[in-house]
Amino acid sequence: MDFALEATLEFSKPLDFLTQTFPSLIATMNSELLRKGVPKEQEGSRIVNWKIIGTKIFLRIEGTTYLRPHDALLRIKNFLAEKFGKEHGIGLRDVLVKEYEIRFKPKRAPKQMVEVKVPWVKEIVQYGKELLIKLQNLDSTCLEDRYVERILKRIDEKILAQHVKGKGETKELIKKSKGRIKNYKIKKDVTEELVKLGWIKNFELAGVWHFLPPMASLIRAIESLIVERIAKPMGFEEIFLPKMVSLETERKKGQLAIPNDMFWICPPVSKDAKEFEEFVDYVEVTQKIPKELLSKKLDFPIGALSYAQCEPFYQIFEKEIVDSETLPLKFFDRFGPTWRYEAGGLKGIERLNEFYRIEFVFLGLPEQVVSIRDEIKDRTLEIVDKIFDVEWKLEKVTPVYLEHAGKVEEEKDELVKTYDLSVLLPFQTPSRPEKELEIASFHVHTNFYTERFKIKEKSGKELWTGCAGLGPTRFAYVFLLRHGFEFEKWPDEIKKRIKKLPKGLKLVSWP
Amino acid sequence: MDFALEATLEFSKPLDFLTQTFPSLIATMNSELLRKGVPKEQEGSRIVNWKIIGTKIFLRIEGTTYLRPHDALLRIKNFLAEKFGKEHGIGLRDVLVKEYEIRFKPKRAPKQMVEVKVPWVKEIVQYGKELLIKLQNLDSTCLEDRYVERILKRIDEKILAQHVKGKGETKELIKKSKGRIKNYKIKKDVTEELVKLGWIKNFELAGVWHFLPPMASLIRAIESLIVERIAKPMGFEEIFLPKMVSLETERKKGQLAIPNDMFWICPPVSKDAKEFEEFVDYVEVTQKIPKELLSKKLDFPIGALSYAQCEPFYQIFEKEIVDSETLPLKFFDRFGPTWRYEAGGLKGIERLNEFYRIEFVFLGLPEQVVSIRDEIKDRTLEIVDKIFDVEWKLEKVTPVYLEHAGKVEEEKDELVKTYDLSVLLPFQTPSRPEKELEIASFHVHTNFYTERFKIKEKSGKELWTGCAGLGPTRFAYVFLLRHGFEFEKWPDEIKKRIKKLPKGLKLVSWP
Repeated sequence: MDFALEATLEFSKPLDFLTQTFPSLIATMNSELLRKGVPKEQEGSRIVNWKIIGTKIFLRIEGTTYLRPHDALLRIKNFLAEKFGKEHGIGLRDVLVKEYEIRFKPKRAPKQMVEVKVPWVKEIVQYGKELLIKLQNLDSTCLEDRYVERILKRIDEKILAQHVKGKGETKELIKKSKGRIKNYKIKKDVTEELVKLGWIKNFELAGVWHFLPPMASLIRAIESLIVERIAKPMGFEEIFLPKMVSLETERKKGQLAIPNDMFWICPPVSKDAKEFEEFVDYVEVTQKIPKELLSKKLDFPIGALSYAQCEPFYQIFEKEIVDSETLPLKFFDRFGPTWRYEAGGLKGIERLNEFYRIEFVFLGLPEQVVSIRDEIKDRTLEIVDKIFDVEWKLEKVTPVYLEHAGKVEEEKDELVKTYDLSVLLPFQTPSRPEKELEIASFHVHTNFYTERFKIKEKSGKELWTGCAGLGPTRFAYVFLLRHGFEFEKWPDEIKKRIKKLPKGLKLVSWP
Repeated sequence: MDFALEATLEFSKPLDFLTQTFPSLIATMNSELLRKGVPKEQEGSRIVNWKIIGTKIFLRIEGTTYLRPHDALLRIKNFLAEKFGKEHGIGLRDVLVKEYEIRFKPKRAPKQMVEVKVPWVKEIVQYGKELLIKLQNLDSTCLEDRYVERILKRIDEKILAQHVKGKGETKELIKKSKGRIKNYKIKKDVTEELVKLGWIKNFELAGVWHFLPPMASLIRAIESLIVERIAKPMGFEEIFLPKMVSLETERKKGQLAIPNDMFWICPPVSKDAKEFEEFVDYVEVTQKIPKELLSKKLDFPIGALSYAQCEPFYQIFEKEIVDSETLPLKFFDRFGPTWRYEAGGLKGIERLNEFYRIEFVFLGLPEQVVSIRDEIKDRTLEIVDKIFDVEWKLEKVTPVYLEHAGKVEEEKDELVKTYDLSVLLPFQTPSRPEKELEIASFHVHTNFYTERFKIKEKSGKELWTGCAGLGPTRFAYVFLLRHGFEFEKWPDEIKKRIKKLPKGLKLVSWP
């Protein structure tokens, strides 16, 4: 990697009086200041050109990875600021890197051009396996907050993503049940029938439904089965996690890499009703909703509707220190829905914009986390195999938490980070061209979140996190396929939890 | 009420050829068309002036409430469109009321000037007890969709609101418990102590908290008490109501009158990740969140976070016909949180932006709805009085559902529409200058929602709705004040539902 940078340092007073002595100062900086920490036999960074005009010093610095020119510049800046301050009472006003060219060999060869759409990237030019990255207008925040390093990292990530296959292509079958599709009582999507029976009714928003008494009963029975067969015996304790998730927590969780898949929450610009009088009057007079006007009265988003359910869990421990003696910590959350923006085209209840899920979250030492994740997975398989009696498969897939965060797994690893549990269907789902439905997933995040949320162990031990999401609505969906709508014929484990199934809703005009 | 309107009718071809015959047509319209339905001895509307220029007819119409000029204009429009179409092959192109002056005597005298901030209201001038309302630029949609009537109604509502006192001032004590504050184990806000015990932890958003195992246990025990003592014996069935509520449902529910109190949901402008590349790159490179850029990538709001919890219930029955034989319908919902934008200044957990509530919703004949509401109220009082043993008061208050909808109750009514149940506190709450906390409210809406959602009974019987919201988080708050934090000393009815209280969270660095 070669670097060449052109910078301006601006001071509080004219520096022309230095023109005579500056060459020797440059020589000293090159031979001392910029040699610190650079191996003797290696090149670091050097000032190769300079000019003083009025209050400004222009520098051209060239360098290598042993001392990158922008790091060299930070040294020079601090050195001159101190020196000029002491000797001449002159202060440093501003630092700006106007131009910065980096010859960069990415980890993998780019398959197509890469862009990083930030104001500081002027151009990225590809020369064979190398890239010439032209940066511009980096101020001291950019330099100190390591924007340069992150731009290079982002380029590497984007190239890597070009090489990595999608989730579908990287699945690896781990385990599957016997063929059972022939036993399914229903061989088509159950949505229409559920409506006919008065078990569900569609709401005004795509992918959002009313779950009426019989369906709510079935979902609660499945929830109770999960709680009693997984949460309780494993010592998971219930918590209520926030469902309105702050931007900062979404960022650290990595969710800001998929803003296109989320619903965003905007508060009103003001608590003052007067601010909205025009809107309210319009609504009352026209009985129509001026969405654009409403939109103008909303503030910037403060967060998103919980997408992953576990986001706030990591925030509980953010910047905290944990004692390994108290680990593992095992919680579960079933406090209402989570949300995914699935855009149009949602038809059945197998895929929803607002849906119910039970989320297991845990923090512990690496071996604890792996073993908890595996036990939840095994207990879930037991329910799905023995009680639900559906045809299922367990697959190793690309860790979705990395995917969400716009990251990809770089190296092969023995440890399975994510298992997906899917149930096979005798038909293609209404909303996607698949004959299967994922009903649960089980994750070990290694130290991905403990790093991002700065969670430390008292004596420095490595901490990992894990989570597992089980979707009772989807469990209910595949349960109904297998066992049909006749309560009397359902398995006892479900029946005993419902006792008497409520009737479907019947109106004169509906279903 | 006197009305004077100036309108233009525009046709597809010049009408100058009519100038000769038009006076007699006007006379006929005045004496026949505009007399229909007007009592013999009363004035209706009359065309008092007219002009034909090119393709346009200008009319001035004056009238009374017996036939309002804008209704007269619609008659004239239809009459002329048919006549000119048949006789001359000339079509009607456009109708516009450029000016419309209405002398209006509102139901109550305005205390201060009233505005209706819609483009069609030019000015409202007050003359003593009368108003001169100057309207402008009303097109055929405005006329046909009854904007004029709604503007007058809105003026009346706004004047009425000037006369009606706030909720606080109109409270009427119905019933209260014995003085018990002296028995409270805790005499100050419990939030700080709950944090110290590791029962709750604050999240990054104001008024949103993590509820950790002991607190979640207590809330679930209270939930179970409510379900077993109220929902089950009364035959309420559980449903899952949507928490993401569409704009249209919020409008009919009347929530759009308080946009300043709600959180709004905006989807991304697109499902295409490319659209967000600039945003994601910025976040990755700077580790900062460009809120304004994100905001630009969001679509208009599609709805709001459920505020009242019951909003979607009425939508289930929208435009449906119900058989009174199947009534009453009694459902309850405990599917996650609801949200209120309380702005800044939230300190304790007694008032939250995201909170948990159990909502009872019911539809029936008037006497059914009143009796159900009263039974829920009585059963709640039993729990609060006997098990919680706190000091409470039950008050008749202004129906909050009318307040939300920007409406006010006009007349005295024997029927209590809304009861608020509050618990007395030995201190002022952290978030509001009150020494009490509302923990439940019980409503009969009469036909307010069955009208707005067009819910009909098969044989035309009147249908009413009701709802009752009980807040387990607030129940827990007052429970802790009365009974303290020692599990062993809690009442059996709560203890038996918890069995073993989980420990508070303890980290090395927290609480």
